[in-house]
Amino acid sequence: MEKKEEYKYRGHLWFAMRPGVGRLTEPMAPEFQRAEKGWEKTPPYLAYHIFDKVHTVMLTEQGIIPRSDGAAILRAFREMEAEGVVAARVRVGGVDHSGEAYLIERLGWEVGGRIHIGRSTGDLATVSQHITQREYVLEAMELLTSARMALAGFAEKHVETIWPMYSPGLTVYGSGYILQHAQPMTLGFYAMAFLNQLEREQRKLEAAYDLFQISPAGSAIGTGTDIPGFDRHRTMALLGFDALYRNCYDAEKHEWYTLDSFAVLLTLSHVISGLFYDLLVYSSNEFGLVDPADRYCGTSSIMPQKRNPTALRFLADLTVNVKSRMLGADSVDGMHRSWTDINNGLRMIPGILGTLKVDSSRAEELAGAHWAGASDLASAVVREKGLSWRTAHQIVATLVRVSVERGVKPSQVTEEHLDEAATMYPDYGRNLGLSTQIIQEAMDPRKMVYRRTLIGGPAPVRVLEEIALSQRKIEEDSVYITEKRRKLEKAAGDLEEAIDRIIGI
Amino acid sequence: MEKKEEYKYRGHLWFAMRPGVGRLTEPMAPEFQRAEKGWEKTPPYLAYHIFDKVHTVMLTEQGIIPRSDGAAILRAFREMEAEGVVAARVRVGGVDHSGEAYLIERLGWEVGGRIHIGRSTGDLATVSQHITQREYVLEAMELLTSARMALAGFAEKHVETIWPMYSPGLTVYGSGYILQHAQPMTLGFYAMAFLNQLEREQRKLEAAYDLFQISPAGSAIGTGTDIPGFDRHRTMALLGFDALYRNCYDAEKHEWYTLDSFAVLLTLSHVISGLFYDLLVYSSNEFGLVDPADRYCGTSSIMPQKRNPTALRFLADLTVNVKSRMLGADSVDGMHRSWTDINNGLRMIPGILGTLKVDSSRAEELAGAHWAGASDLASAVVREKGLSWRTAHQIVATLVRVSVERGVKPSQVTEEHLDEAATMYPDYGRNLGLSTQIIQEAMDPRKMVYRRTLIGGPAPVRVLEEIALSQRKIEEDSVYITEKRRKLEKAAGDLEEAIDRIIGI
Amino acid sequence: MEKKEEYKYRGHLWFAMRPGVGRLTEPMAPEFQRAEKGWEKTPPYLAYHIFDKVHTVMLTEQGIIPRSDGAAILRAFREMEAEGVVAARVRVGGVDHSGEAYLIERLGWEVGGRIHIGRSTGDLATVSQHITQREYVLEAMELLTSARMALAGFAEKHVETIWPMYSPGLTVYGSGYILQHAQPMTLGFYAMAFLNQLEREQRKLEAAYDLFQISPAGSAIGTGTDIPGFDRHRTMALLGFDALYRNCYDAEKHEWYTLDSFAVLLTLSHVISGLFYDLLVYSSNEFGLVDPADRYCGTSSIMPQKRNPTALRFLADLTVNVKSRMLGADSVDGMHRSWTDINNGLRMIPGILGTLKVDSSRAEELAGAHWAGASDLASAVVREKGLSWRTAHQIVATLVRVSVERGVKPSQVTEEHLDEAATMYPDYGRNLGLSTQIIQEAMDPRKMVYRRTLIGGPAPVRVLEEIALSQRKIEEDSVYITEKRRKLEKAAGDLEEAIDRIIGI
Amino acid sequence: MEKKEEYKYRGHLWFAMRPGVGRLTEPMAPEFQRAEKGWEKTPPYLAYHIFDKVHTVMLTEQGIIPRSDGAAILRAFREMEAEGVVAARVRVGGVDHSGEAYLIERLGWEVGGRIHIGRSTGDLATVSQHITQREYVLEAMELLTSARMALAGFAEKHVETIWPMYSPGLTVYGSGYILQHAQPMTLGFYAMAFLNQLEREQRKLEAAYDLFQISPAGSAIGTGTDIPGFDRHRTMALLGFDALYRNCYDAEKHEWYTLDSFAVLLTLSHVISGLFYDLLVYSSNEFGLVDPADRYCGTSSIMPQKRNPTALRFLADLTVNVKSRMLGADSVDGMHRSWTDINNGLRMIPGILGTLKVDSSRAEELAGAHWAGASDLASAVVREKGLSWRTAHQIVATLVRVSVERGVKPSQVTEEHLDEAATMYPDYGRNLGLSTQIIQEAMDPRKMVYRRTLIGGPAPVRVLEEIALSQRKIEEDSVYITEKRRKLEKAAGDLEEAIDRIIGI
Repeated sequence: MEKKEEYKYRGHLWFAMRPGVGRLTEPMAPEFQRAEKGWEKTPPYLAYHIFDKVHTVMLTEQGIIPRSDGAAILRAFREMEAEGVVAARVRVGGVDHSGEAYLIERLGWEVGGRIHIGRSTGDLATVSQHITQREYVLEAMELLTSARMALAGFAEKHVETIWPMYSPGLTVYGSGYILQHAQPMTLGFYAMAFLNQLEREQRKLEAAYDLFQISPAGSAIGTGTDIPGFDRHRTMALLGFDALYRNCYDAEKHEWYTLDSFAVLLTLSHVISGLFYDLLVYSSNEFGLVDPADRYCGTSSIMPQKRNPTALRFLADLTVNVKSRMLGADSVDGMHRSWTDINNGLRMIPGILGTLKVDSSRAEELAGAHWAGASDLASAVVREKGLSWRTAHQIVATLVRVSVERGVKPSQVTEEHLDEAATMYPDYGRNLGLSTQIIQEAMDPRKMVYRRTLIGGPAPVRVLEEIALSQRKIEEDSVYITEKRRKLEKAAGDLEEAIDRIIGI
Repeated sequence: MEKKEEYKYRGHLWFAMRPGVGRLTEPMAPEFQRAEKGWEKTPPYLAYHIFDKVHTVMLTEQGIIPRSDGAAILRAFREMEAEGVVAARVRVGGVDHSGEAYLIERLGWEVGGRIHIGRSTGDLATVSQHITQREYVLEAMELLTSARMALAGFAEKHVETIWPMYSPGLTVYGSGYILQHAQPMTLGFYAMAFLNQLEREQRKLEAAYDLFQISPAGSAIGTGTDIPGFDRHRTMALLGFDALYRNCYDAEKHEWYTLDSFAVLLTLSHVISGLFYDLLVYSSNEFGLVDPADRYCGTSSIMPQKRNPTALRFLADLTVNVKSRMLGADSVDGMHRSWTDINNGLRMIPGILGTLKVDSSRAEELAGAHWAGASDLASAVVREKGLSWRTAHQIVATLVRVSVERGVKPSQVTEEHLDEAATMYPDYGRNLGLSTQIIQEAMDPRKMVYRRTLIGGPAPVRVLEEIALSQRKIEEDSVYITEKRRKLEKAAGDLEEAIDRIIGI
Repeated sequence: MEKKEEYKYRGHLWFAMRPGVGRLTEPMAPEFQRAEKGWEKTPPYLAYHIFDKVHTVMLTEQGIIPRSDGAAILRAFREMEAEGVVAARVRVGGVDHSGEAYLIERLGWEVGGRIHIGRSTGDLATVSQHITQREYVLEAMELLTSARMALAGFAEKHVETIWPMYSPGLTVYGSGYILQHAQPMTLGFYAMAFLNQLEREQRKLEAAYDLFQISPAGSAIGTGTDIPGFDRHRTMALLGFDALYRNCYDAEKHEWYTLDSFAVLLTLSHVISGLFYDLLVYSSNEFGLVDPADRYCGTSSIMPQKRNPTALRFLADLTVNVKSRMLGADSVDGMHRSWTDINNGLRMIPGILGTLKVDSSRAEELAGAHWAGASDLASAVVREKGLSWRTAHQIVATLVRVSVERGVKPSQVTEEHLDEAATMYPDYGRNLGLSTQIIQEAMDPRKMVYRRTLIGGPAPVRVLEEIALSQRKIEEDSVYITEKRRKLEKAAGDLEEAIDRIIGI
Repeated sequence: MEKKEEYKYRGHLWFAMRPGVGRLTEPMAPEFQRAEKGWEKTPPYLAYHIFDKVHTVMLTEQGIIPRSDGAAILRAFREMEAEGVVAARVRVGGVDHSGEAYLIERLGWEVGGRIHIGRSTGDLATVSQHITQREYVLEAMELLTSARMALAGFAEKHVETIWPMYSPGLTVYGSGYILQHAQPMTLGFYAMAFLNQLEREQRKLEAAYDLFQISPAGSAIGTGTDIPGFDRHRTMALLGFDALYRNCYDAEKHEWYTLDSFAVLLTLSHVISGLFYDLLVYSSNEFGLVDPADRYCGTSSIMPQKRNPTALRFLADLTVNVKSRMLGADSVDGMHRSWTDINNGLRMIPGILGTLKVDSSRAEELAGAHWAGASDLASAVVREKGLSWRTAHQIVATLVRVSVERGVKPSQVTEEHLDEAATMYPDYGRNLGLSTQIIQEAMDPRKMVYRRTLIGGPAPVRVLEEIALSQRKIEEDSVYITEKRRKLEKAAGDLEEAIDRIIGI
């Protein structure tokens, strides 16, 4: 037997996927493996650690604890870093109070027990949650940027790929996923709808970032402390925050900012799931429009032919999970779980789109096959014959019904067919005399698309302009994100310098 | 212009649907129109009325109010019935207390004001809710019986209609709707899975009915009354209930029995939505498996070709609506809204199934086209050549992959193809020598189905037995339902007799 | 009998509330009556009407329909306005297409049937939904401004009212409503926490407003039209929108902007419900801290003493209803229902706060009674005796436990008690020697509050600064809101002028 | 420093809780520690193992795999048991296919690869889920029995403890938690309301158990297998199931039975949370009615006085968590998480109730203090003076209002006060002449309770009968549960005997 490690890349079905044989030709994509793991509940030790250091620096600078004790504490934290912050904190126990536990172990109750003055378990929770959530948001913005670039590139590649539109209505597990052919578009135009929405999502992420950049440090359990000299501006600056909660009770209302995460997760997840639920349906054999790479698929222990689009399903499921998780008393866990899933999902998008096989001839065939051109035929009747929209619409509707009953396809419709329908129509009752050529041009899916040059229309010339506009926005947003990242790095540097000063390096 | 009433049968698109022309040939089904209306919030006046009468009879019989006053009150209620109960109660106002309002208007404060002794607004709420919910359940059982009969008939008709199975996993807006071909089955077998589940739903409805048949009458606001002689058994019997809440505070816990409705709505709606969400997908042009009748479809004001399967969508949406409505503080309204939708949905099922066009040749073609026979080929390799399942499974998986890459279809696979795959497989590495005939028979979708005669399998001979069994269950359940209905009619008759006695008729 | 109209002001319990007698002394507040009615499902006829006129003006100006037909249509709409827009549209039927129905009735199929060119039912839905939702948001901002003013005034009035804090944790139906005494604050400080959060909610409403100010008009069913000359900028301007959807398929994704409403409703409702759920609990006899006016209360048909704080309950329930309603396939209805409830709720806030009776001596008594001063005693031990926080904290915890066991109240604690606890503590083991005066001053609730002058603290001097800051923000936001309102009025004026020009007035 | 293990019993606040000092006197209860851990996601290895053995036995008995191979496989599983089933399966990997992975490692592809014939990953999922869920239900019934016994004992102890009733309406995070005094009851009577509901929950658990006792084994991926001789009755019997799914596609519909769990979790969690949310409120200092033991409480790192009723909160939160978890695509995880929480919650109930301190004098004082006797005074007026209920009710409501305005307490009301109110009332307008003694007896909370001897009333004599009845039901249900447990043990024994026969022991 070969070593089983070789097969392990497919998880529980390892024995069904020996290299070189079997249904699938690639190992699971690493980012997909990461996504399947999901959030693992663990205390935010690094955030506690930063806050422990910042709080000690401020207490020492303000003379609230003796300078020598402050230096001893900060030196102990440096040693903890040498050991490994997470490892050391897990070892001593105490979770959010692991910093104090470590200090008491090393420095005794009288020095180590000084750290908690002027703050509460509440501070540890709110500060670490703000740090964690701002990082979620910042990472989401970075990953979203890559996903937007991938989507823009995908749109550019498919700006002329004729694509059927299915009646949108309300989508994704909501209502109205009726899968009936509306008018033809292009795959590039379709992709741009999601990209435009993701641009609005970037704005929402920025607004959310600002909300998590308000410092709760020093609010204790809701009224702050009576210790004189306490400096909330200093802790704000060293933690990299931009502003202060100006009311300590406000700062302690955890659910408010948990919901601030959910508010943005709600819409962002919905857009992503909407796109990938579509792709999931389009990847069925019956639709046959797209095909994800093996690295994003699973298979079966019994059916040798199975290639399940499991990564698409992961993305399609994001939004119902987000919605459900905001409702429980355990919604803080649900928030962490959701951010993890969203960011893992965003991380997969460039790879999935970059390797997606698209069957453009199948798409163009479907786009023309199911009378999706009927509305433009009505439009032609209005333009050429001066009829009102309603009359033209009803004559064409009659034409479609009669044709479907007789098995006449859109590509076979002639002047005579239309005349017959016009004659059947009570308020018209005579031939229309629209030539077969005009009829066929009206209903040609490619021509329908190219005629739509209005703002917001699918004509390639128009969509290319929008892609260029979107690419400029990506560049602008990248600058914004980089600045935010730099500000956090600056604050981290300032903190270490302040520590150096106190411990006398 | 014709009179617009003629077109109104299509609701807001009336002008797009003049009779005899346009896309659709039928008016909306009346039960579909009813379903679209949904629940209209209105007090349960008839339930209040019955309780008002029952309470008065008991008070009078027990001597708690003077016999002459009791007779006056009951006579007034008879007059109210002549006027029309709902109309009279709306006229006097007072909602749940409309009975007392009417009596005070007619008989003055001293006689009319007697009715409320020993009961509370809480009694009015709980008694009327029990009456309303038991009626929802009883009606659901009646409508479910018709739906089950329709489904059994549909299954019988399609017991030999070969049908593709799509990977189930978790379904309906949940997760795992991956639309990949699993093994072939028949449409009749598919329908029977839902019918079997609906049989279990009937059991749940029966259990729910028992819960709503416990009488809360006389529990007042949670401790009952201190008025001597109060007879809760008498009100129980006249209201048609089967048992008593043996603790008045228990009887007042409204949410308990609101949730009892949701518990059964949760699973019943899920089964219905699962079936009709499938049919919605199958009705797309790309799947092309089923086609609902025009009377269950909508169209478009702009796209003349549109035939939207709106009734299927209504049924597919039931379950997410039920789930969401159980969560709010307004969940009592949500419960009424949900029962109304469920019963309206059940009412449509016989019509939809009875008029559904099924494309059985398309279905058989799809069932054979996408390597759904691969697992039975592996099975044949095990049987004929004695290989282990895993080895056979991996050789066939290799065969499928290579064939897909080369464009070889299942129907074109020969002994040589399989030998090549077996030779590629490291632990086998030689020809298998399975004849082309055995290969093709193994993968023939019809033969796959007919071979599966095990209990629970799709072979027609087996499914016909199950249909017969299910039909017998429908008959048995009909007897149960009829008995429940008769018991309620008997109680209503007893009440009128008791009133006759008091007012001296 | 008096005329029952006199009692009707209490709804279903009219006969229990004759003027001048009974439990309650006031009729229900009119805004509370309005809130109880809730959303009544009705098509947005006025929004359809504006769009019908705007669309016709653009078609006529661009020569897409003959000028004479355009003039006839616009004249007909003026006549409709004389009749009453809603009445006329209800009369002719057709819901979203009621404009076309009316025109066809008056002008026949050939003129009336022209209006729908270049748009779809989708346009009618998206445009009317954008108009409706921007109005919800604008009204919410206006009502929120009044609520914020009321809250600022309330805070000012109670800036010195000592108030107990109850452990916040996560609140409102979530988790952690544990009702244990934390440190004392003031009622004004408490109110300001909510006001600060509402300031952030104003920012979210502004962001939401921008999202609803993007014009979907002309996106038809997702690809726009092929009619030449179509001018989306013109319709945008006349509808008062600020920008265009630059992709018509994007514009048709209804759920996206339904969720944009829910995202802001989610957090806004949560803040309101959090405040009023607290007040509901505080209004119980056991807490006895606040008492809402009779006009915001209900009573009972059986218990003469009942005064139920039903308006507080309405506000406390907002958030669970919002959360549940976003989950269903019927979430568009849920969105309308939720905005109606939120705005009705906001409308009640000034009245409720303005009439709320506050028992400040009860509050100060509770604030001091349950050892809420213990943390400041630990703080005093640190300051006066140089102990570490942890040692001081544990000595005081021991003091509290022993005192509770012996029935010693906080106001009775002396130097000797504290010495005993310090002696019991293993790492200290001797007397502390902190004077009874210092002990009592440390735990005095009023002094605790006045000592907390840090930013974010409850000291009156600090809170008064925050109130002034908040009042300035209200003024600034009022200017913003007024400008938005004016811009909409300007667009409405422009539309009428354009119509005048076409019909030749 | 002492060894920190000594303090660890308080989790993250270990340093705040040194033995013998600090606020709390007891370590956390072990069942509370277990509850805080919650569900840890792990594959159901033991269920896979049983199914692996059962499947192999059936295949061997039926001659589907060679007897020698079957014996080798079963011997290997015996060796796996010697190593430890979970450890061995974790070591080889493969999750649900860990059995096959182990066999292939030991016996090679040709023998080990035989096990999976005639079943699928789907079988492994459905069978293991049925086994897991039936165990959840059975354990729930066992724990519920203990909780019911504890509740019956608690009720018996408090059958004469006068207790205030707070207006129920809809409760627990729903709506209507208005905390206004209704009529007095006893704590025993209150407890019995929950016990009666839990008896109905036992019926629901029994119905759920039956649903999980249907065997899906052999349904493969929805159509069963074409391998001849496959015996689903044999696997059913050896797995301890009671019936067969008679349609293999039905058996594969996972969500159906996931929802069957949620349906029962929905109502069961609601009852438990309703009770403990009440107790949480009652444990506040302001209510002061109950006090949980230290072992069920937490404390604070900053506030030395804190005693947080965290176990009550855990139980109060159960129901919102259940509701939210049923909505996601990850609802299978949510189901496991919810059963774990519910059973952990049930396990705490006897301990919490058994150690709960009850302040019965405070309760009796509250029960009489807030005019809760007013309805019985109205009742006395009816009985003694023959007035109608409505007139009596309004006179007493007037009395209450006037008394509250003047600061007259219920215990101070005299004949004169009532006469004044009666005189004020327009339809009466004269003295009533009801003696002060009758007035005071009517409103005495203890007498109110003892007068209510009707069925469902709180009089001790009545409640004692109900307790006896409930205790008999507990005994009956215990027999039922024991029988279920025995049947499972019998099946496990049969399986080992069958294995012995095959491997020749």
